[in-house]
This record gives sequence, structure tokens and C-alpha cells, in this order.
Amino acid sequence: MISAKQYNSAVARAEEMLGKAGIVFTPEEHGRFEVADFGLGDLEQTGLEIITYVNTDRCCAKEIIMFPRQTCPEHWHPTTNGVPGKEETFRCRWGTVYLYVSGPPAAAPACRPPAGSEPYYTVWNEIVLRPGQQYTLMPDTPHWFQAGPEGAIVSEFSTRSTDDQDRFRDPRIARAPEIAAESA
Amino acid sequence: MISAKQYNSAVARAEEMLGKAGIVFTPEEHGRFEVADFGLGDLEQTGLEIITYVNTDRCCAKEIIMFPRQTCPEHWHPTTNGVPGKEETFRCRWGTVYLYVSGPPAAAPACRPPAGSEPYYTVWNEIVLRPGQQYTLMPDTPHWFQAGPEGAIVSEFSTRSTDDQDRFRDPRIARAPEIAAESA
Repeated sequence: MISAKQYNSAVARAEEMLGKAGIVFTPEEHGRFEVADFGLGDLEQTGLEIITYVNTDRCCAKEIIMFPRQTCPEHWHPTTNGVPGKEETFRCRWGTVYLYVSGPPAAAPACRPPAGSEPYYTVWNEIVLRPGQQYTLMPDTPHWFQAGPEGAIVSEFSTRSTDDQDRFRDPRIARAPEIAAESA
Repeated sequence: MISAKQYNSAVARAEEMLGKAGIVFTPEEHGRFEVADFGLGDLEQTGLEIITYVNTDRCCAKEIIMFPRQTCPEHWHPTTNGVPGKEETFRCRWGTVYLYVSGPPAAAPACRPPAGSEPYYTVWNEIVLRPGQQYTLMPDTPHWFQAGPEGAIVSEFSTRSTDDQDRFRDPRIARAPEIAAESA
């Protein structure tokens, strides 16, 4: 769980990064920033800072802010009862993000998994996204991503976000219930 | 129809505006910019400049660049054979955009329709979007929008774009066939 102090500090850092990138948000959005540590209690290594702009039944758009070397752990968006899982496009806006998916593994990957979590990182085909570059992930595709040494800002364009349906490789991870926001 | 000269000039202006807003695009995107005059042959008044980032069966994201006072004419995204029409969220990134939808008309609207096209602008509920502000339009909702005196950059997050299905109030308008890009 994230403390109020940790939440406020993470939001302040994320907002400073958005400012550098020239991305404007509203006071209302300031008040509902999402800070996710995936229940692992090590936000600096494993976590995301997110503003969700819109999430309707049909589509969703977010800004994902990542601190230097911060990692979103390996997961996928499953097709359930014939309903296709979430499809998402990541577009790098600032910094660098390394995205890993199934396929030929990188000989010398730019990233390492967070220490202690190595067994839960299994896909190693490396896609490097710099500002203006993007990649589209279809449902059921395992993936993880890590920011470069400056951090990264990534726009996500997707079908409806249903975080509670995400499947993580790491059985310790609980995505949906661990988001602290009310305390801000 | 838009001439190659007009196309190249519009793309250069749009790219300069993206630069001011700190929005990065790729050389590949430079080569497939869309410049739409809606068949009216008066791009300065009625037109849009667009980079489509992604458009799959399920979702779509674009950057719309509008010159000062440039107008997207009144149209809607119809539900057809039970398939819901396009849903879209406009998020202002730079400048100001005035969006008009059904509802109580503005007493003193900030915009006027392009001269000579007045009969085809019928909805006058005014929504002002400045950077960071956004509005979501459900299918079948008539709307038009105009940039303020500096122009505007608007991110559009939506379900699949199917421009050929758009319905315009102005019967002179032909959306899909009038896009010049090959000439660039």
C-alpha cells in the first residue's frame, strides 16, 4: 500500500515531468492521479503514475508517467468468455521506454527486471520507443516495459481499461485493489 | 481538391504548430499527414490537418491541428444497422477550440460559421476547450468546432474512424474522397 506522503511525492514528480514535456492537465485531474505500486511496496522499481483522460465502455486514453528505470511488470489482457481483451497502443511522448513482448529475445537487452522479481519476466523481444514512436499490442499478448534513465511519458490509446481483469506473471501482484488516491 | 502546393504549405504550418506545442511526430507520419478541405475548396475557413496515430477495428487516436479560426463543419457519426457510430473525445492540447453541440444555444457565441455556409450550422450549445480540457461525444450527436484566433491542437481519442460514414449537414460536402496526400 502507498502512504499519503509517498502518493503526494510521486504525483509531484510526475507532474513536474509532464510540465517538462509540455503536457497540460486540469486541477480535477491533479486530484485523481493514480499511483500504482502493484502491491509490491517498491514504487521506485515497480510502479506507474497515471492520468486517465477518458475510459468509456468503448475506449480509453491515458498518460503514463514513469520514473527513471521504473517498470510495469509482465502482464496481459485476456480474452474472457469470448469478449476480446484490451487492445492498447503505447506512444512515447518524452524520454525512452523499452517494451518487451514475445518473440526473438534481445541478445543484450537494455533493461533488467527489478531485483528479486526475475522469474516473473519471461518475454524478451525488445522494442525501443522514443518520442513519436509507438507500438500496438493486441489482446492476450504478454508484455512488460521499463523507462530509460531519464524516465518516460507514454500515451496509451486503448479499448476500455478493466484493470481488475489483467493477468500478471508474478503471483504476488494485485493490481486493482492497491491504488491509493483517496489519501491525497 | 487540394493542390500539392497547398498541401505542402498546410503540412508545414501544422508541423510548426506541433513543434510549438512540443508534440513529436515521426518522419513516417510527416509523409502521411492528412489535409482535408471537405471538398469546399476553402481550406483556410473550412478544413482540418490531421495525423492519425492509430486506427484499428476497435480504437483510434489522432492529433488534429487547426489554423486560426479554421472550422470543422457540422456532422455526426451515425449508428448504422445497429452498429453504434463513432464515439470521440476531444482533448485540447494547445490554443483554444470552440465546440458546438445540441442544447441551449449560446447567447453570444464566440464563433461564426464560415461565410456562405451559415444554413449548415444548426447546433449552438457552446463548449470552450482550453489546454487540458476535453469533451466526449457519443454517436449520432451533431457537432462542429472552430479554433480560436491562435489556432488549436486537439487530441482525438475514439472508436474506429470511418470517415466515409460521416454525415454532414452541408450537402456540398464530400469528406472521404477529397483528401490529398499522394501529391506530397
